[in-house]
Amino acid sequence: MKTSRIKIVENILNANDQIAEENSRMLKKHHIYSINFMAAPGAGKTSLILKTIQALSNDLRIAVIEGDTAPVTIDADKVQAQGIPAIQINTGGGCHLDAPMIRSGLAQLSLKELDLVIIENVGNLICPASFKLGTNINVVIASVPEGDDKPYKYPNIYRGIDALILNKIDLKPYIEFNESYFIKGIEILNPGVRFFEVSCKTGEGLNAWTDWLKEKIIHFKNE
Amino acid sequence: MKTSRIKIVENILNANDQIAEENSRMLKKHHIYSINFMAAPGAGKTSLILKTIQALSNDLRIAVIEGDTAPVTIDADKVQAQGIPAIQINTGGGCHLDAPMIRSGLAQLSLKELDLVIIENVGNLICPASFKLGTNINVVIASVPEGDDKPYKYPNIYRGIDALILNKIDLKPYIEFNESYFIKGIEILNPGVRFFEVSCKTGEGLNAWTDWLKEKIIHFKNE
Repeated sequence: MKTSRIKIVENILNANDQIAEENSRMLKKHHIYSINFMAAPGAGKTSLILKTIQALSNDLRIAVIEGDTAPVTIDADKVQAQGIPAIQINTGGGCHLDAPMIRSGLAQLSLKELDLVIIENVGNLICPASFKLGTNINVVIASVPEGDDKPYKYPNIYRGIDALILNKIDLKPYIEFNESYFIKGIEILNPGVRFFEVSCKTGEGLNAWTDWLKEKIIHFKNE
Repeated sequence: MKTSRIKIVENILNANDQIAEENSRMLKKHHIYSINFMAAPGAGKTSLILKTIQALSNDLRIAVIEGDTAPVTIDADKVQAQGIPAIQINTGGGCHLDAPMIRSGLAQLSLKELDLVIIENVGNLICPASFKLGTNINVVIASVPEGDDKPYKYPNIYRGIDALILNKIDLKPYIEFNESYFIKGIEILNPGVRFFEVSCKTGEGLNAWTDWLKEKIIHFKNE
């Protein structure tokens, strides 16, 4: 019984990875760069996406795919209010986005008219780690009020990421947050990961993140 | 294919609910009251548990079951430092506790010597909602920095709970948080839910929570 159950799960993951590769090929074919943002609920995924859009939308044509567990369009509405196309994927209570969902989302976008697709995963520090989507980079957004021990408690999500953004640094004066302990936790899991400290509220640190991202995109477009 | 997959999931849930009832009966037999704390990562579950222990441990014999996705004992260590027995359940990357895990945890405790078992679920606003554990009450801990829109975005976890504790109210001066919007979201899902506002940092509001809990436990013990 147990063996057969494990086998089914493996098949599902393999199927997901295959479709993730197809997503990756399709995006590459259209010269579209893509990002998968993962974070706990309330870390500031949508705020960071809005700031990233503001910094890049003069030069790049952007679309956003929003993953939500419930049929509410709070985040997608905020994106569309910036004049950016947003596709909402309602997982129907599901705890993560997977590659087939992204394939469905991409099918609803005019890929010929895009340079960048930003994906906001479901707010969850566990399940999204197991499902590749086919994006160029995976980015985790942490936040100061979540606490400095999160890399130790939720290690899987911090593994294999390309950048870690620590948001809400404006709250540092009011919260005990041991930054060297936090960074050590990230680096054990992920040596050499790019680390950005930002405040989406004050704007502090955002340029370093968007400059790095711009360079990545330019490099990708010239490949 | 799809029908058979759905059926398997239903069977798992039914098996879980049956074991949750067994847990409930076993706890009742030993006159032990029990709480399932659920929250997003970093909302302050462990801090609230420590404060609850401090308020109740003179009158009640308490044990804690800690759910973690990784084999780290950060939270269990903090509980044991208070002289309280703590059992750690490592879900091995799993996103929630389930009733069989609690059964295993209870088997490691001296139930005859306990009045209260506190369970700290895995930090996740989605998956724990689907798995009853057999506790007397289910409590969600939210926190001000998570934002006021969480009940709308993660409705399942807020349904069928007995109390909602909003933690980190000391951060209100520094964060935009529309409290009436937040409470409206909770009440739509869960009319009449008990609502507590606390700061585990300053201690504000904790007495209202622990007084309410004490009354619930006394009532249960006298049943």
